[in-house]
Amino acid sequence: MKLVKHLKVQKGMNVSELVQEMQGVGFGAGDIAKASLIMDEMFKDKNCRVFFGVAGAMVPAGMKEVIMDLLDETDVFVTTGANLTHDLIEALGENHYIGDKLVSDEELNDEGIDRIYNVFMKNEVYEKLEDFFEKNFDKLRECKTIKDFLWKIGELSQGKGILKKCWEKKIPVFCPGISDSGIGMMMWGRNVKSKFKTNIDVFADINDIVDISWTSKKTGVIYVGGGLPKNFIQQSMQFSKGADYGIQITTDRPEPGGSSGAPLKEGISWGKMKKTGKFVDVFCDATIALPLIFASIRK
Amino acid sequence: MKLVKHLKVQKGMNVSELVQEMQGVGFGAGDIAKASLIMDEMFKDKNCRVFFGVAGAMVPAGMKEVIMDLLDETDVFVTTGANLTHDLIEALGENHYIGDKLVSDEELNDEGIDRIYNVFMKNEVYEKLEDFFEKNFDKLRECKTIKDFLWKIGELSQGKGILKKCWEKKIPVFCPGISDSGIGMMMWGRNVKSKFKTNIDVFADINDIVDISWTSKKTGVIYVGGGLPKNFIQQSMQFSKGADYGIQITTDRPEPGGSSGAPLKEGISWGKMKKTGKFVDVFCDATIALPLIFASIRK
Amino acid sequence: MKLVKHLKVQKGMNVSELVQEMQGVGFGAGDIAKASLIMDEMFKDKNCRVFFGVAGAMVPAGMKEVIMDLLDETDVFVTTGANLTHDLIEALGENHYIGDKLVSDEELNDEGIDRIYNVFMKNEVYEKLEDFFEKNFDKLRECKTIKDFLWKIGELSQGKGILKKCWEKKIPVFCPGISDSGIGMMMWGRNVKSKFKTNIDVFADINDIVDISWTSKKTGVIYVGGGLPKNFIQQSMQFSKGADYGIQITTDRPEPGGSSGAPLKEGISWGKMKKTGKFVDVFCDATIALPLIFASIRK
Amino acid sequence: MKLVKHLKVQKGMNVSELVQEMQGVGFGAGDIAKASLIMDEMFKDKNCRVFFGVAGAMVPAGMKEVIMDLLDETDVFVTTGANLTHDLIEALGENHYIGDKLVSDEELNDEGIDRIYNVFMKNEVYEKLEDFFEKNFDKLRECKTIKDFLWKIGELSQGKGILKKCWEKKIPVFCPGISDSGIGMMMWGRNVKSKFKTNIDVFADINDIVDISWTSKKTGVIYVGGGLPKNFIQQSMQFSKGADYGIQITTDRPEPGGSSGAPLKEGISWGKMKKTGKFVDVFCDATIALPLIFASIRK
Repeated sequence: MKLVKHLKVQKGMNVSELVQEMQGVGFGAGDIAKASLIMDEMFKDKNCRVFFGVAGAMVPAGMKEVIMDLLDETDVFVTTGANLTHDLIEALGENHYIGDKLVSDEELNDEGIDRIYNVFMKNEVYEKLEDFFEKNFDKLRECKTIKDFLWKIGELSQGKGILKKCWEKKIPVFCPGISDSGIGMMMWGRNVKSKFKTNIDVFADINDIVDISWTSKKTGVIYVGGGLPKNFIQQSMQFSKGADYGIQITTDRPEPGGSSGAPLKEGISWGKMKKTGKFVDVFCDATIALPLIFASIRK
Repeated sequence: MKLVKHLKVQKGMNVSELVQEMQGVGFGAGDIAKASLIMDEMFKDKNCRVFFGVAGAMVPAGMKEVIMDLLDETDVFVTTGANLTHDLIEALGENHYIGDKLVSDEELNDEGIDRIYNVFMKNEVYEKLEDFFEKNFDKLRECKTIKDFLWKIGELSQGKGILKKCWEKKIPVFCPGISDSGIGMMMWGRNVKSKFKTNIDVFADINDIVDISWTSKKTGVIYVGGGLPKNFIQQSMQFSKGADYGIQITTDRPEPGGSSGAPLKEGISWGKMKKTGKFVDVFCDATIALPLIFASIRK
Repeated sequence: MKLVKHLKVQKGMNVSELVQEMQGVGFGAGDIAKASLIMDEMFKDKNCRVFFGVAGAMVPAGMKEVIMDLLDETDVFVTTGANLTHDLIEALGENHYIGDKLVSDEELNDEGIDRIYNVFMKNEVYEKLEDFFEKNFDKLRECKTIKDFLWKIGELSQGKGILKKCWEKKIPVFCPGISDSGIGMMMWGRNVKSKFKTNIDVFADINDIVDISWTSKKTGVIYVGGGLPKNFIQQSMQFSKGADYGIQITTDRPEPGGSSGAPLKEGISWGKMKKTGKFVDVFCDATIALPLIFASIRK
Repeated sequence: MKLVKHLKVQKGMNVSELVQEMQGVGFGAGDIAKASLIMDEMFKDKNCRVFFGVAGAMVPAGMKEVIMDLLDETDVFVTTGANLTHDLIEALGENHYIGDKLVSDEELNDEGIDRIYNVFMKNEVYEKLEDFFEKNFDKLRECKTIKDFLWKIGELSQGKGILKKCWEKKIPVFCPGISDSGIGMMMWGRNVKSKFKTNIDVFADINDIVDISWTSKKTGVIYVGGGLPKNFIQQSMQFSKGADYGIQITTDRPEPGGSSGAPLKEGISWGKMKKTGKFVDVFCDATIALPLIFASIRK
């Protein structure tokens, strides 16, 4: 036990100073401070490979740049098909919008606008997606793993974005639920129309992520929002004898037993987190916590 | 607006009487009552195909029989690889246990016990899984879709369970995230050792679910816990011109923008829920709400 | 650890049978079952005095009858001023209504309707409240404790309700935050206009609740929603050497450190819960959990 | 609708720069940015009186200095008896500690340590509290309102703190639930022993807060955690014709209908929030959100 040191706000203080002040306090702020220390140590540890899992609508919400900057420190990236679809939509020149969460969904539908809480997108963006996949189907259907397929999208898309960066930097990117997304729907559409079809075995990517985990001296995990990205990394952690570092940001409850709300320490029972691991669960909206933690270590 | 009619508890009342009393009240109880009415109407509507999506650790928690009974009313079932792995584990004769949520994860690990909140499982169950997949790999690797692969598991496993029932009753069962599970790991292990490998195209199942949605006169959706199961059904709903009925049970928050916490009405903007659809969001642990709602319509 | 026994829904099953089935499962349903067993034991224990604390808008929501029935088993009742104001409003012949939670607050305001999530009330009810307090001010201002003041309201009001029952059955009813309510505002209004003023010492009621706690052989606590009612009971529990039984129903998170979300076991550190106490935290909307638990023991 | 502008983390950026970046994004971060703008405008508006309500264990957690700095901008302060008790405990020279949330409550009890999530306090601090109230009872029992009583504590206590500052700066401080706290228990103890007793009418303070609200040209409200502090301010807002500005920070759910989780816009129906008011609900642990928002306007 250490003394509570009351947080003091100073004029013009920078983010790392604020988060340093949070070290002295309890509850959520203390967890932010702990996450900052762990992220800093994880990134500086040359023997540690970082596995970064992102669920939730982080790209539509405006977290694309934060994720892209974090990719510079990331060895394995796992996310949802939705995030990658929205990343590609932006890479193709389309946009997302912020608005009023109280707007009528009936009116939105009439106007051809799709809603994600208070983020909006014109439904017509799917036409550009169609064009992209129509044009590039022959190259995409050659891929044999989801990772290669995603890299190929990154290579073929024009604008910058997460997939472009993963391809450029050869960061392994996994998306076990890729069929559950706009990208999946596009590929289905092409498969239906084409004589030649895709042939990406559903289990093929496991080999890659297990191999990276297996050959790591140390591992660190960062989970935003849980879901498949968390679990897919978690199951690979058994091959690294458990993660050495862990940061989880989620607002899901632990009581109903879902993986997204499960505290990291449960991973110890499964051998997915080391008993000596340094880890923290941050109960906070990730659009607040992730930039705050990341900015605090960018001194 | 209708008058609040205070709920009255009667001695020995049955579940449908209790839930009927909930019709007169506000907040969560009113939503349970509404879900009961919608489920009843959805199941009785001969023109309606029911899409049932289950995320979260429902099988380990003890909801297997409830899910199996609900499958009698279900036209399409979508779930996580974890639920199917735990279903298979039980079909192979192994068990789950309830215990104290405050137990030490370090001690559990020493004893070879895996934990899901207050549900526990011996890690040695994976040996039986290994045997099953070792023995049946040749048959399983022939499958070309995840659905056929899951039906094959159902056919080959001895004990009763969800997959067995889906196979017996030919209920289409989808699991877009199957690689993210113990079953996925087992198949990876066999693929590594075998000269012959699986060849299940990751996009292949979309065709089946879209086709069922497309050919439905009416559709109803039941979502437990969100996640991939919800989203995979949601994306198929566009082909049914939106669901006519909807029940969502989740404890996730809407504010952070994830699909699992998104209210059903957001689906209207996307064309995944009909403007005239009857739907309700139930904010409740599904192990409480699902049996309660289901029991209320089993008069 | 005991074996998970999958919950089985039977046709026409009654509530106690359903909750009995929940004994075999994990997560929230298991907690409901545990709460049922504890409530049953608590109520049957002749040496145990039951302290029942209710926060949240339970009366407007339609839980008045459930609370009144539970008062038959209650030795001390603590609630918010809001609940008692809404109880009195109904006792004076006014009503609450259920409606659509998506209605516009601007329109409600134009129509003179006040909203509590999806429960509504005409603002004009306050006129009847005014009449009641105007007419009875002379009797009410004589009271020297909040408990006596509340009993007096119960005596003077015509219709049935919580306060009427507390007065009739002489159940001690505490409301430390009474000034924070419509009743409080009414008394302020009369105090302003009258030469004679109220004289209810703010600390006076502590004596009564501590005395009851102090002289109890055993104590049991039931908390709905936390808040002042929980804490006011908790602080008296130290004088009973800690509660022997405890049921808490809340949806508040523990992480931000508030009393409403704090698990009952924290009370052990303070000496407010016995180390050997039987207690359970139920994470559930109280309008669902409270009737469900209570109905399960009314065989 | 405005374009999502992806948040960009810069090296060494200060807090106001980070929060400014949050203006371009959705979900929680956008709400933080909005709260920052509203707080800035509220504080700069010379015609606006600021009503600041704080529930939750903010003082034990380490938010005392933040609250004290915010008091410089505050016209009315409302909080819980718990916060004021812990403030006084520190003013008397005692401390709080941060530790491991997984520690055993049984062991803590053996060691005489009280726990609030991951914040701890020696139970022996109550001895100093006893001394303080024993020594000063004669002066304290003279007070006729809770506000005067709290100012008197501020005057009589040695160390700095919230009550000391409220007294020094003559900031009206209200605590309608004062009897529900360590301070309340101490006063009860003295009342029991003394021939002369306190005489603080429970309704007396309403006059003061209504009067301040009534005479305000404009009003702004800041709610941390809901509870009595929120509601006590809310009921006074009707006399200001509704608040012009509002910031609410809470992690409570709206669905179960409690005041703490109710969105600010519900206040419009009641006439507690102006239709033209600028307000935002921030779903976040207040130990994170409050310093972040406050630091962002301290340029």
